[in-house]
Amino acid sequence: MKIVVLKFGGTSVGTIKKIKKVADIIADYKKKKYKVIVVSSAMSGVTNELIKKSFEISDNFSYSEYDVLVSSGEQVACSLIAGRLIHKGYKSRSWLSWQVPILTVGVHKNSRINQINRSKILKYLNNGGIPIITGFQGINNENRITTIGRGGSDASAILIAKFFKAERCIIYTDVEGVFTTDPNKLKKAKKIKEISYEEMLEMASLGAKVMQPVSIQDARLNRINIEVRSSFIKKSGTLITKRSNIINNRIVTGISCTQNDSKVSLIGVKDKPGVAAAIFKPLSKNLINVDMVVQNISANGKETDLTFTIKTEDLNKTKKIIQQNKNLNYRNLIFEKNVSKISVIGVGMITTPGVTFRMFQTLANKGINIKVISTSEIKISVLIDKKNTQKALIALHKEFKLDQKK
Amino acid sequence: MKIVVLKFGGTSVGTIKKIKKVADIIADYKKKKYKVIVVSSAMSGVTNELIKKSFEISDNFSYSEYDVLVSSGEQVACSLIAGRLIHKGYKSRSWLSWQVPILTVGVHKNSRINQINRSKILKYLNNGGIPIITGFQGINNENRITTIGRGGSDASAILIAKFFKAERCIIYTDVEGVFTTDPNKLKKAKKIKEISYEEMLEMASLGAKVMQPVSIQDARLNRINIEVRSSFIKKSGTLITKRSNIINNRIVTGISCTQNDSKVSLIGVKDKPGVAAAIFKPLSKNLINVDMVVQNISANGKETDLTFTIKTEDLNKTKKIIQQNKNLNYRNLIFEKNVSKISVIGVGMITTPGVTFRMFQTLANKGINIKVISTSEIKISVLIDKKNTQKALIALHKEFKLDQKK
Repeated sequence: MKIVVLKFGGTSVGTIKKIKKVADIIADYKKKKYKVIVVSSAMSGVTNELIKKSFEISDNFSYSEYDVLVSSGEQVACSLIAGRLIHKGYKSRSWLSWQVPILTVGVHKNSRINQINRSKILKYLNNGGIPIITGFQGINNENRITTIGRGGSDASAILIAKFFKAERCIIYTDVEGVFTTDPNKLKKAKKIKEISYEEMLEMASLGAKVMQPVSIQDARLNRINIEVRSSFIKKSGTLITKRSNIINNRIVTGISCTQNDSKVSLIGVKDKPGVAAAIFKPLSKNLINVDMVVQNISANGKETDLTFTIKTEDLNKTKKIIQQNKNLNYRNLIFEKNVSKISVIGVGMITTPGVTFRMFQTLANKGINIKVISTSEIKISVLIDKKNTQKALIALHKEFKLDQKK
Repeated sequence: MKIVVLKFGGTSVGTIKKIKKVADIIADYKKKKYKVIVVSSAMSGVTNELIKKSFEISDNFSYSEYDVLVSSGEQVACSLIAGRLIHKGYKSRSWLSWQVPILTVGVHKNSRINQINRSKILKYLNNGGIPIITGFQGINNENRITTIGRGGSDASAILIAKFFKAERCIIYTDVEGVFTTDPNKLKKAKKIKEISYEEMLEMASLGAKVMQPVSIQDARLNRINIEVRSSFIKKSGTLITKRSNIINNRIVTGISCTQNDSKVSLIGVKDKPGVAAAIFKPLSKNLINVDMVVQNISANGKETDLTFTIKTEDLNKTKKIIQQNKNLNYRNLIFEKNVSKISVIGVGMITTPGVTFRMFQTLANKGINIKVISTSEIKISVLIDKKNTQKALIALHKEFKLDQKK
């Protein structure tokens, strides 16, 4: 009998009614003769309420007590799910992270799952039970509750899938899956049936908020097949898997775009080692997230131009930091608000020449000027005027045949 | 250095503001060079909210998952208290029952604390820490969370005081202490400085809702000095201790009265073994709480009269049960609504003759008819017309000098 891990996010267990629905979904897998392991987040809103309380207690609330506080949210959700399954006649129980146990390393509020003890859960599965495990948390070697930082319950589910050698890890959430582009921005966006980890990583970091990059990376490293699907609509979702599992690769899988970006260009920077570091170190220190970075080869071997993008909300802060930076030499400094980054992503690009050209031609045909270009193995990103974003999105989505059902 | 156990009830930690106040109280004891162990309930309202959720999930919610669910409430409260103490510069942390551990026996939702592992907490105390322990819960021998039934967090605090040989267990609550009678019923009610366990037991079971009888009994058996006091007003409360510790015993310590009682009399019942059982077994089965039971000696050796009281809300149910009971023989059945039980309580009675007479005389002087009398070593209870309750209370409170400050 194969093991499947089902993970439910906060919105999926956000109300009692939804928890009942979740129990029905779990029961369906049990009927299909799977060994089912469930991982749940806290009911939506609960964690934020608890965090709000911690702020009211102290603007510098203890990290270790923070973990005790917020971990109670998953405890509540898991007991309610288990309670519902028991009500439906199934053998089920909540498993708190200290009961499994799930061992973590690292600091409070930002731990990593290091080891999951399999014996008790395996015994419970073999006896026909459905374990409901608290996501987002573990215990450290001092027997204290920890929470895992980035990735949250998704990361828990993926590592549980790894340790139990699950056939699949299904992430139930409030979206139907991963789309060719943001359906809120483009109605013609289509759900992607299968996507590689690498593409998904590019999609995720570019704004498809389905899963956190760190969790996708965990899945990729451990070769866990993930399905992202809706807990509200009974439709298959998107399978995130390794490239070789995807038979019918499109050239371009998805298009993502950012908004509210600003461009910063340093013209005539000395072309010598350490310059980029001198620019980006103080930005990083001030928690300014630098996205695209482009530097052209030096024309005369002495000077170069360096361009990068940041969120527009960080623009003023960035201006100050650069202008006050005594370690920098440049001839000119140019800031530009209201730019957008638009990226086409697809592993098919590697083997298909001319994708770059088709992208540029499509934009040119629409009279859209490209400000900056940056490419990776499976992604081409360009910077354009913000006002052209929608026009570009429509044109590229059509050009790469993403409007068509696969 | 002496150990003191401070227990805070749900209303004492009901808001963030109150939790901050609680942290100040704890800090005061720490400054007085006590080793302080704190036990906390859940924030008021939280447990009921969780129970409501469980009902929505199932009208027969799993008992073991119920314990997981509701125990989260104390976890939240303890982390917030510890967080506040840390904010104030103290060494503190939450201790969940599985971390101590606190071991229980018995069934879910109704376990009893059996053993408390002292080593970790003692080490923590010796290192200057203030442990904040979750009340109302423990773990069983299967490593599952349990909650203790009656007594709740009070019982946890008292047993922690026992295992750690605490000098005193202070129950912080929303009342100032134990009063000579319900201050809501009689303005002249005075706070009692010291009361014996036995008196407190009678007071508690008669309606002084300060502490549950089971917790007082635990304290009595383990000779734990309990102080009940308010977490909102800085005033000494009531010390509950053993009789011999109380120097200045009054004859009567307190007066309590019940309302909404009904009286049931079976006239001419056969005076033979098993009759009382035949009457009360079906009542008990139907969860009808029988309070006062009085049976006089048989005048002719064949027949007797039996009277008992119940809550008026149970009257119709009780009528049916008795009338349909085929095992009963009686000549007449009398029901009387609107009766009150008024009781005077005091260990001083044992050594002071004439208390009964004084009580009866006082009531007679006010023209109040006594329907039924029942006495124990330290208590005299009478049944009177409900309409006379207040008059009786005022007269008796004055007669036994409870109006005067002690």
